[in-house]
Amino acid sequence: MDEATRQAFSDIDECQKELDELNYMASKEILQVETKYNKLRKPFYDKRAAVIEKIPNFWVNAIVNHPQISMLVDEEEEDCLNFLKKLEVQKFENGFRVKFIFDENPFFDNGELIKEFQLGPNTEPKSTSTIIEWKENMDLSRKQPQIIDANRKRGLEQKTFFSWFSDNKNPAADDIAEVIKDDLWPNPLKYFVSSDENVIDEETPAV
Amino acid sequence: MDEATRQAFSDIDECQKELDELNYMASKEILQVETKYNKLRKPFYDKRAAVIEKIPNFWVNAIVNHPQISMLVDEEEEDCLNFLKKLEVQKFENGFRVKFIFDENPFFDNGELIKEFQLGPNTEPKSTSTIIEWKENMDLSRKQPQIIDANRKRGLEQKTFFSWFSDNKNPAADDIAEVIKDDLWPNPLKYFVSSDENVIDEETPAV
Ligand SMILES: [Ca+2]
Ligand SMILES: [Ca+2]
Ligand SMILES: [Mg+2]
Ligand SMILES: [Mg+2]
Repeated sequence: MDEATRQAFSDIDECQKELDELNYMASKEILQVETKYNKLRKPFYDKRAAVIEKIPNFWVNAIVNHPQISMLVDEEEEDCLNFLKKLEVQKFENGFRVKFIFDENPFFDNGELIKEFQLGPNTEPKSTSTIIEWKENMDLSRKQPQIIDANRKRGLEQKTFFSWFSDNKNPAADDIAEVIKDDLWPNPLKYFVSSDENVIDEETPAV
Repeated sequence: MDEATRQAFSDIDECQKELDELNYMASKEILQVETKYNKLRKPFYDKRAAVIEKIPNFWVNAIVNHPQISMLVDEEEEDCLNFLKKLEVQKFENGFRVKFIFDENPFFDNGELIKEFQLGPNTEPKSTSTIIEWKENMDLSRKQPQIIDANRKRGLEQKTFFSWFSDNKNPAADDIAEVIKDDLWPNPLKYFVSSDENVIDEETPAV
Protein backbone atom coordinates (compact mmCIF):
# COMPACT_ATOMS: atom_id res chain seq x y z
CA MET A 1 0.00 0.00 0.00
CA ASP A 2 1.46 3.38 -0.99
CA GLU A 3 1.49 6.45 1.23
CA ALA A 4 -1.38 8.18 -0.64
CA THR A 5 -3.66 5.13 -0.20
CA ARG A 6 -2.68 4.80 3.43
CA GLN A 7 -3.57 8.48 3.94
CA ALA A 8 -6.90 8.03 2.10
CA PHE A 9 -7.84 5.08 4.35
CA SER A 10 -6.96 7.03 7.44
CA ASP A 11 -9.06 10.00 6.22
CA ILE A 12 -12.05 7.74 5.57
CA ASP A 13 -11.57 6.13 8.94
CA GLU A 14 -11.65 9.51 10.63
CA CYS A 15 -14.91 10.38 8.84
CA GLN A 16 -16.35 7.03 9.95
CA LYS A 17 -15.58 7.74 13.59
CA GLU A 18 -17.38 11.08 13.41
CA LEU A 19 -20.33 9.50 11.58
CA ASP A 20 -20.58 6.64 14.09
CA GLU A 21 -20.70 9.11 16.94
CA LEU A 22 -23.34 11.25 15.21
CA ASN A 23 -25.43 8.14 14.47
CA TYR A 24 -25.21 7.12 18.10
CA MET A 25 -26.24 10.57 19.30
CA ALA A 26 -29.11 10.74 16.79
CA SER A 27 -30.59 7.40 17.88
CA LYS A 28 -30.27 8.42 21.53
CA GLU A 29 -32.16 11.65 20.87
CA ILE A 30 -34.85 9.87 18.86
CA LEU A 31 -35.28 7.33 21.63
CA GLN A 32 -35.69 10.21 24.08
CA VAL A 33 -38.44 11.76 21.95
CA GLU A 34 -40.20 8.39 21.64
CA THR A 35 -39.94 7.72 25.38
CA LYS A 36 -41.35 11.15 26.15
CA TYR A 37 -44.34 10.68 23.82
CA ASN A 38 -44.96 7.11 25.00
CA LYS A 39 -45.41 8.57 28.48
CA LEU A 40 -47.69 11.33 27.20
CA ARG A 41 -49.80 8.85 25.19
CA LYS A 42 -50.15 6.26 27.96
CA PRO A 43 -53.02 7.84 29.95
CA PHE A 44 -55.09 8.15 26.76
CA TYR A 45 -54.42 4.57 25.70
CA ASP A 46 -55.33 3.44 29.24
CA LYS A 47 -58.54 5.44 29.24
CA ARG A 48 -59.39 4.14 25.76
CA ALA A 49 -58.76 0.52 26.82
CA ALA A 50 -61.02 0.92 29.86
CA VAL A 51 -63.88 2.28 27.75
CA ILE A 52 -63.39 -0.34 25.02
CA GLU A 53 -63.67 -3.15 27.57
CA LYS A 54 -67.22 -1.99 28.30
CA ILE A 55 -68.29 -2.36 24.66
CA PRO A 56 -69.17 -6.00 23.86
CA ASN A 57 -67.21 -7.56 20.97
CA PHE A 58 -65.41 -4.32 20.21
CA TRP A 59 -62.16 -5.84 18.91
CA VAL A 60 -63.65 -8.68 16.88
CA ASN A 61 -65.91 -6.19 15.13
CA ALA A 62 -63.03 -3.82 14.43
CA ILE A 63 -60.98 -6.75 13.08
CA VAL A 64 -63.61 -8.30 10.81
CA ASN A 65 -64.36 -4.88 9.37
CA HIS A 66 -60.77 -3.94 8.68
CA PRO A 67 -60.16 -4.23 4.91
CA GLN A 68 -56.84 -6.12 5.22
CA ILE A 69 -57.07 -7.95 8.55
CA SER A 70 -60.58 -9.26 7.88
CA MET A 71 -59.27 -11.17 4.86
CA LEU A 72 -57.45 -13.50 7.26
CA VAL A 73 -60.35 -14.34 9.52
CA ASP A 74 -62.40 -17.38 8.65
CA GLU A 75 -65.81 -18.08 10.21
CA GLU A 76 -64.65 -20.32 13.07
CA GLU A 77 -61.85 -17.94 13.86
CA GLU A 78 -64.41 -15.17 14.11
CA ASP A 79 -66.30 -17.23 16.71
CA CYS A 80 -63.05 -17.56 18.61
CA LEU A 81 -62.23 -13.85 18.34
CA ASN A 82 -65.55 -13.08 20.04
CA PHE A 83 -63.64 -13.97 23.22
CA LEU A 84 -60.94 -11.35 22.48
CA LYS A 85 -61.32 -8.99 25.43
CA LYS A 86 -58.43 -6.65 24.84
CA LEU A 87 -55.86 -5.86 22.19
CA GLU A 88 -52.69 -3.96 22.94
CA VAL A 89 -49.72 -2.81 20.87
CA GLN A 90 -46.54 -2.07 22.80
CA LYS A 91 -43.64 -0.42 21.01
CA PHE A 92 -40.11 -0.62 22.30
CA GLU A 93 -36.69 0.47 21.12
CA ASN A 94 -36.14 -2.06 18.32
CA GLY A 95 -39.52 -3.57 17.75
CA PHE A 96 -43.03 -4.04 19.03
CA ARG A 97 -45.42 -6.64 20.36
CA VAL A 98 -49.12 -7.25 19.81
CA LYS A 99 -50.97 -8.68 22.80
CA PHE A 100 -54.32 -10.44 22.35
CA ILE A 101 -56.00 -10.91 25.73
CA PHE A 102 -58.83 -13.45 25.78
CA ASP A 103 -61.68 -14.31 28.11
CA GLU A 104 -62.02 -17.97 29.04
CA ASN A 105 -63.06 -19.69 25.87
CA PRO A 106 -63.75 -23.12 24.39
CA PHE A 107 -60.82 -22.93 21.92
CA PHE A 108 -57.58 -22.67 23.91
CA ASP A 109 -56.22 -22.41 27.43
CA ASN A 110 -54.01 -19.32 27.00
CA GLY A 111 -55.28 -16.09 28.51
CA GLU A 112 -52.88 -14.06 26.42
CA LEU A 113 -51.44 -14.55 22.94
CA ILE A 114 -48.39 -12.42 22.17
CA LYS A 115 -46.65 -11.90 18.84
CA GLU A 116 -43.41 -9.97 19.19
CA PHE A 117 -41.11 -8.42 16.57
CA GLN A 118 -37.42 -7.60 17.01
CA LEU A 119 -36.48 -5.50 14.00
CA GLY A 120 -32.89 -4.42 14.17
CA PRO A 121 -31.21 -2.19 13.01
CA ASN A 122 -28.18 -4.21 14.14
CA THR A 123 -29.74 -7.67 14.33
CA GLU A 124 -31.56 -10.00 11.96
CA PRO A 125 -35.31 -9.31 12.02
CA LYS A 126 -37.00 -11.90 14.21
CA SER A 127 -40.51 -12.62 15.45
CA THR A 128 -41.85 -15.02 18.04
CA SER A 129 -45.37 -15.96 19.09
CA THR A 130 -46.99 -17.64 22.04
CA ILE A 131 -47.56 -21.36 21.48
CA ILE A 132 -51.33 -21.79 21.45
CA GLU A 133 -52.59 -24.48 23.82
CA TRP A 134 -55.60 -25.65 21.83
CA LYS A 135 -58.26 -27.60 23.68
CA GLU A 136 -59.03 -31.07 22.39
CA ASN A 137 -60.37 -31.03 18.80
CA MET A 138 -60.39 -27.24 18.78
CA ASP A 139 -57.15 -26.56 16.92
CA LEU A 140 -58.34 -24.05 14.31
CA SER A 141 -54.93 -23.97 12.67
CA ARG A 142 -55.37 -27.60 11.58
CA LYS A 143 -58.72 -27.09 9.89
CA GLN A 144 -59.19 -26.09 6.27
CA PRO A 145 -60.24 -22.44 6.22
CA GLN A 146 -63.96 -22.04 5.50
CA ILE A 147 -64.30 -19.55 2.70
CA ILE A 148 -67.92 -18.73 3.40
CA ASP A 149 -67.81 -14.96 3.12
CA ALA A 150 -66.56 -14.44 -0.43
CA ASN A 151 -66.23 -10.74 0.18
CA ARG A 152 -64.01 -11.25 3.16
CA LYS A 153 -61.72 -13.83 1.54
CA ARG A 154 -61.32 -12.08 -1.78
CA GLY A 155 -57.82 -11.84 -3.16
CA LEU A 156 -55.20 -14.54 -3.11
CA GLU A 157 -54.78 -14.55 0.66
CA GLN A 158 -54.42 -18.17 1.80
CA LYS A 159 -53.44 -17.37 5.38
CA THR A 160 -55.88 -17.47 8.25
CA PHE A 161 -55.71 -15.44 11.44
CA PHE A 162 -54.12 -18.16 13.55
CA SER A 163 -51.76 -19.34 10.82
CA TRP A 164 -50.60 -15.72 10.51
CA PHE A 165 -50.22 -15.52 14.29
CA SER A 166 -48.00 -18.60 14.47
CA ASP A 167 -45.99 -17.97 11.28
CA ASN A 168 -42.61 -16.37 12.00
CA LYS A 169 -40.87 -17.12 8.70
CA ASN A 170 -40.76 -13.58 7.29
CA PRO A 171 -40.74 -11.12 10.20
CA ALA A 172 -39.34 -8.22 8.15
CA ALA A 173 -42.32 -8.27 5.78
CA ASP A 174 -45.30 -9.02 8.04
CA ASP A 175 -47.90 -6.74 6.46
CA ILE A 176 -50.64 -7.81 8.86
CA ALA A 177 -48.59 -6.97 11.94
CA GLU A 178 -47.71 -3.61 10.40
CA VAL A 179 -51.36 -2.89 9.68
CA ILE A 180 -52.35 -3.80 13.24
CA LYS A 181 -49.61 -1.55 14.63
CA ASP A 182 -49.96 1.40 12.27
CA ASP A 183 -53.64 1.39 11.37
CA LEU A 184 -55.92 -0.69 13.62
CA TRP A 185 -54.22 0.24 16.89
CA PRO A 186 -53.97 4.00 16.24
CA ASN A 187 -57.72 4.21 15.51
CA PRO A 188 -59.83 1.06 16.05
CA LEU A 189 -63.04 3.06 16.47
CA LYS A 190 -62.96 3.86 12.75
CA TYR A 191 -63.35 0.15 11.96
CA PHE A 192 -65.71 -0.68 14.80
CA VAL A 193 -68.06 2.03 13.57
CA SER A 194 -68.11 0.64 10.03
CA SER A 195 -68.86 -2.73 11.68
CA ASP A 196 -71.95 -1.28 13.25
CA GLU A 197 -73.18 -0.12 9.85
CA ASN A 198 -72.62 -3.65 8.52
CA VAL A 199 -74.81 -5.10 11.25
CA ILE A 200 -77.60 -2.78 10.19
CA ASP A 201 -77.08 -3.75 6.52
CA GLU A 202 -77.22 -7.43 7.37
CA GLU A 203 -80.53 -6.97 9.11
CA THR A 204 -81.99 -5.25 6.06
CA PRO A 205 -83.42 -7.88 3.68
CA ALA A 206 -81.80 -7.86 0.26
CA VAL A 207 -84.01 -6.27 -2.42
CA MET B 1 -77.61 2.93 20.22
CA ASP B 2 -78.21 3.40 23.96
CA GLU B 3 -76.92 6.35 25.97
CA ALA B 4 -74.06 4.35 27.60
CA THR B 5 -72.74 3.22 24.22
CA ARG B 6 -73.03 6.72 22.82
CA GLN B 7 -71.05 8.02 25.81
CA ALA B 8 -68.41 5.28 25.36
CA PHE B 9 -67.95 6.20 21.69
CA SER B 10 -67.61 9.86 22.55
CA ASP B 11 -65.03 9.01 25.27
CA ILE B 12 -62.99 6.91 22.82
CA ASP B 13 -63.24 9.66 20.24
CA GLU B 14 -61.86 12.18 22.72
CA CYS B 15 -58.90 9.87 23.47
CA GLN B 16 -58.29 9.49 19.73
CA LYS B 17 -58.10 13.25 19.24
CA GLU B 18 -55.48 13.56 21.99
CA LEU B 19 -53.54 10.58 20.58
CA ASP B 20 -53.64 11.97 17.03
CA GLU B 21 -52.24 15.26 18.24
CA LEU B 22 -49.48 13.56 20.25
CA ASN B 23 -48.59 11.37 17.25
CA TYR B 24 -48.36 14.44 15.06
CA MET B 25 -46.14 16.26 17.57
CA ALA B 26 -43.92 13.18 18.03
CA SER B 27 -43.30 12.76 14.30
CA LYS B 28 -42.56 16.48 13.97
CA GLU B 29 -39.97 16.29 16.76
CA ILE B 30 -38.39 13.15 15.31
CA LEU B 31 -38.15 14.80 11.90
CA GLN B 32 -36.43 17.78 13.56
CA VAL B 33 -33.86 15.49 15.18
CA GLU B 34 -33.25 13.71 11.87
CA THR B 35 -32.91 16.98 9.96
CA LYS B 36 -30.45 18.28 12.55
CA TYR B 37 -28.26 15.17 12.34
CA ASN B 38 -28.47 15.00 8.55
CA LYS B 39 -26.91 18.46 8.53
CA LEU B 40 -24.25 17.45 11.07
CA ARG B 41 -23.39 14.28 9.11
CA LYS B 42 -23.24 15.96 5.68
CA PRO B 43 -19.68 17.40 5.85
CA PHE B 44 -18.30 13.98 6.88
CA TYR B 45 -20.17 12.18 4.10
CA ASP B 46 -18.91 14.82 1.63
CA LYS B 47 -15.32 14.47 2.84
CA ARG B 48 -15.59 10.68 2.70
CA ALA B 49 -17.00 10.77 -0.84
CA ALA B 50 -14.14 13.01 -2.00
CA VAL B 51 -11.51 10.66 -0.56
CA ILE B 52 -13.27 7.55 -1.90
CA GLU B 53 -13.26 8.98 -5.43
CA LYS B 54 -9.47 8.98 -5.32
CA ILE B 55 -9.30 5.22 -4.59
CA PRO B 56 -9.67 3.20 -7.81
CA ASN B 57 -12.54 0.67 -7.83
CA PHE B 58 -13.48 1.43 -4.24
CA TRP B 59 -17.22 0.71 -4.53
CA VAL B 60 -17.03 -2.37 -6.72
CA ASN B 61 -14.57 -3.89 -4.27
CA ALA B 62 -16.74 -3.02 -1.27
CA ILE B 63 -19.76 -4.52 -3.08
CA VAL B 64 -18.18 -7.80 -4.22
CA ASN B 65 -16.82 -8.33 -0.72
CA HIS B 66 -20.06 -7.66 1.09
CA PRO B 67 -21.48 -11.01 2.26
CA GLN B 68 -25.07 -10.33 1.08
CA ILE B 69 -24.69 -7.88 -1.80
CA SER B 70 -21.89 -9.88 -3.46
CA MET B 71 -24.26 -12.82 -3.90
CA LEU B 72 -26.15 -10.78 -6.49
CA VAL B 73 -23.22 -9.79 -8.64
CA ASP B 74 -22.32 -12.07 -11.53
CA GLU B 75 -19.01 -11.82 -13.38
CA GLU B 76 -20.13 -9.53 -16.23
CA GLU B 77 -21.93 -7.30 -13.77
CA GLU B 78 -18.70 -6.99 -11.81
CA ASP B 79 -16.98 -5.77 -15.01
CA CYS B 80 -19.73 -3.20 -15.33
CA LEU B 81 -19.51 -2.13 -11.67
CA ASN B 82 -15.83 -1.32 -12.22
CA PHE B 83 -17.24 1.88 -13.79
CA LEU B 84 -19.16 2.74 -10.60
CA LYS B 85 -17.54 6.01 -9.54
CA LYS B 86 -19.74 6.97 -6.65
CA LEU B 87 -22.47 5.51 -4.48
CA GLU B 88 -24.75 7.65 -2.37
CA VAL B 89 -27.64 6.95 -0.01
CA GLN B 90 -30.01 9.84 0.61
CA LYS B 91 -32.63 9.51 3.32
CA PHE B 92 -35.73 11.64 3.39
CA GLU B 93 -38.88 11.88 5.46
CA ASN B 94 -40.67 8.75 4.24
CA GLY B 95 -38.04 6.80 2.41
CA PHE B 96 -34.63 6.83 0.83
CA ARG B 97 -32.84 6.59 -2.48
CA VAL B 98 -29.67 4.85 -3.58
CA LYS B 99 -27.70 6.65 -6.31
CA PHE B 100 -25.15 4.78 -8.41
CA ILE B 101 -23.02 7.25 -10.37
CA PHE B 102 -21.06 5.74 -13.26
CA ASP B 103 -18.16 6.80 -15.44
CA GLU B 104 -18.66 6.50 -19.17
CA ASN B 105 -18.81 2.80 -19.83
CA PRO B 106 -19.44 0.27 -22.60
CA PHE B 107 -22.62 -1.11 -20.97
CA PHE B 108 -25.20 1.71 -20.80
CA ASP B 109 -25.68 5.39 -21.53
CA ASN B 110 -26.97 6.52 -18.12
CA GLY B 111 -24.56 8.46 -15.93
CA GLU B 112 -26.69 7.84 -12.86
CA LEU B 113 -28.89 4.92 -11.82
CA ILE B 114 -31.30 5.72 -9.01
CA LYS B 115 -33.48 3.34 -7.00
CA GLU B 116 -35.91 5.13 -4.74
CA PHE B 117 -38.18 3.85 -1.95
CA GLN B 118 -41.32 5.55 -0.62
CA LEU B 119 -42.23 3.68 2.55
CA GLY B 120 -45.25 5.23 4.17
CA PRO B 121 -46.46 5.22 6.96
CA ASN B 122 -49.63 6.57 5.31
CA THR B 123 -49.10 5.30 1.78
CA GLU B 124 -48.52 1.93 0.11
CA PRO B 125 -44.78 1.11 -0.02
CA LYS B 126 -43.49 1.87 -3.49
CA SER B 127 -40.16 1.79 -5.27
CA THR B 128 -39.03 3.07 -8.64
CA SER B 129 -35.79 2.75 -10.55
CA THR B 130 -34.11 4.50 -13.48
CA ILE B 131 -34.74 2.73 -16.78
CA ILE B 132 -31.32 1.52 -17.90
CA GLU B 133 -30.41 2.54 -21.44
CA TRP B 134 -28.31 -0.47 -22.39
CA LYS B 135 -25.98 -0.10 -25.34
CA GLU B 136 -26.52 -2.52 -28.23
CA ASN B 137 -25.97 -6.16 -27.22
CA MET B 138 -24.88 -5.09 -23.74
CA ASP B 139 -28.12 -5.66 -21.82
CA LEU B 140 -26.84 -7.66 -18.84
CA SER B 141 -30.35 -8.16 -17.50
CA ARG B 142 -31.17 -10.34 -20.54
CA LYS B 143 -28.24 -12.68 -20.13
CA GLN B 144 -28.24 -15.83 -18.06
CA PRO B 145 -26.26 -15.14 -14.89
CA GLN B 146 -22.81 -16.72 -15.02
CA ILE B 147 -22.36 -18.68 -11.82
CA ILE B 148 -18.57 -18.84 -12.03
CA ASP B 149 -17.66 -18.00 -8.47
CA ALA B 150 -19.45 -20.72 -6.52
CA ASN B 151 -18.61 -19.00 -3.29
CA ARG B 152 -20.21 -15.79 -4.36
CA LYS B 153 -23.42 -17.32 -5.72
CA ARG B 154 -24.01 -19.75 -2.86
CA GLY B 155 -27.50 -19.96 -1.46
CA LEU B 156 -30.73 -19.95 -3.41
CA GLU B 157 -30.38 -16.37 -4.64
CA GLN B 158 -31.46 -16.26 -8.28
CA LYS B 159 -31.39 -12.49 -8.61
CA THR B 160 -28.54 -10.59 -10.20
CA PHE B 161 -27.48 -7.04 -9.43
CA PHE B 162 -29.32 -5.44 -12.34
CA SER B 163 -32.42 -7.60 -11.99
CA TRP B 164 -32.54 -6.51 -8.34
CA PHE B 165 -32.08 -2.90 -9.41
CA SER B 166 -34.99 -2.99 -11.86
CA ASP B 167 -37.34 -5.13 -9.76
CA ASN B 168 -39.93 -3.05 -7.90
CA LYS B 169 -42.44 -5.78 -7.08
CA ASN B 170 -41.86 -6.01 -3.32
CA PRO B 171 -40.58 -2.62 -2.09
CA ALA B 172 -41.49 -3.26 1.56
CA ALA B 173 -39.19 -6.29 1.76
CA ASP B 174 -36.15 -5.31 -0.30
CA ASP B 175 -33.39 -6.82 1.84
CA ILE B 176 -30.62 -5.72 -0.53
CA ALA B 177 -31.69 -2.08 -0.45
CA GLU B 178 -31.88 -2.26 3.35
CA VAL B 179 -28.40 -3.75 3.55
CA ILE B 180 -27.00 -1.04 1.26
CA LYS B 181 -28.65 1.66 3.37
CA ASP B 182 -27.99 0.26 6.83
CA ASP B 183 -24.73 -1.63 6.42
CA LEU B 184 -22.70 -0.82 3.27
CA TRP B 185 -23.37 2.93 3.30
CA PRO B 186 -22.69 3.50 7.02
CA ASN B 187 -19.26 1.80 6.72
CA PRO B 188 -18.04 0.79 3.26
CA LEU B 189 -14.38 0.82 4.30
CA LYS B 190 -15.01 -2.31 6.36
CA TYR B 191 -15.83 -4.23 3.16
CA PHE B 192 -13.26 -2.53 0.94
CA VAL B 193 -10.55 -3.55 3.40
CA SER B 194 -11.61 -7.19 3.34
CA SER B 195 -11.50 -6.84 -0.49
CA ASP B 196 -7.86 -5.78 -0.31
CA GLU B 197 -7.00 -8.89 1.68
CA ASN B 198 -8.69 -10.97 -1.02
CA VAL B 199 -6.52 -9.40 -3.69
CA ILE B 200 -3.42 -10.36 -1.72
CA ASP B 201 -4.76 -13.90 -1.27
CA GLU B 202 -5.41 -14.19 -4.99
CA GLU B 203 -1.83 -13.24 -5.77
CA THR B 204 -0.51 -15.91 -3.41
CA PRO B 205 -0.25 -19.22 -5.28
CA ALA B 206 -2.42 -21.96 -3.79
CA VAL B 207 -0.42 -24.53 -1.80
CA1 LIG C 1 -70.17 -7.57 10.44
CA1 LIG D 1 -11.66 -9.58 -4.76
MG1 LIG E 1 -57.39 -1.06 24.24
MG1 LIG F 1 -19.27 8.33 -1.05
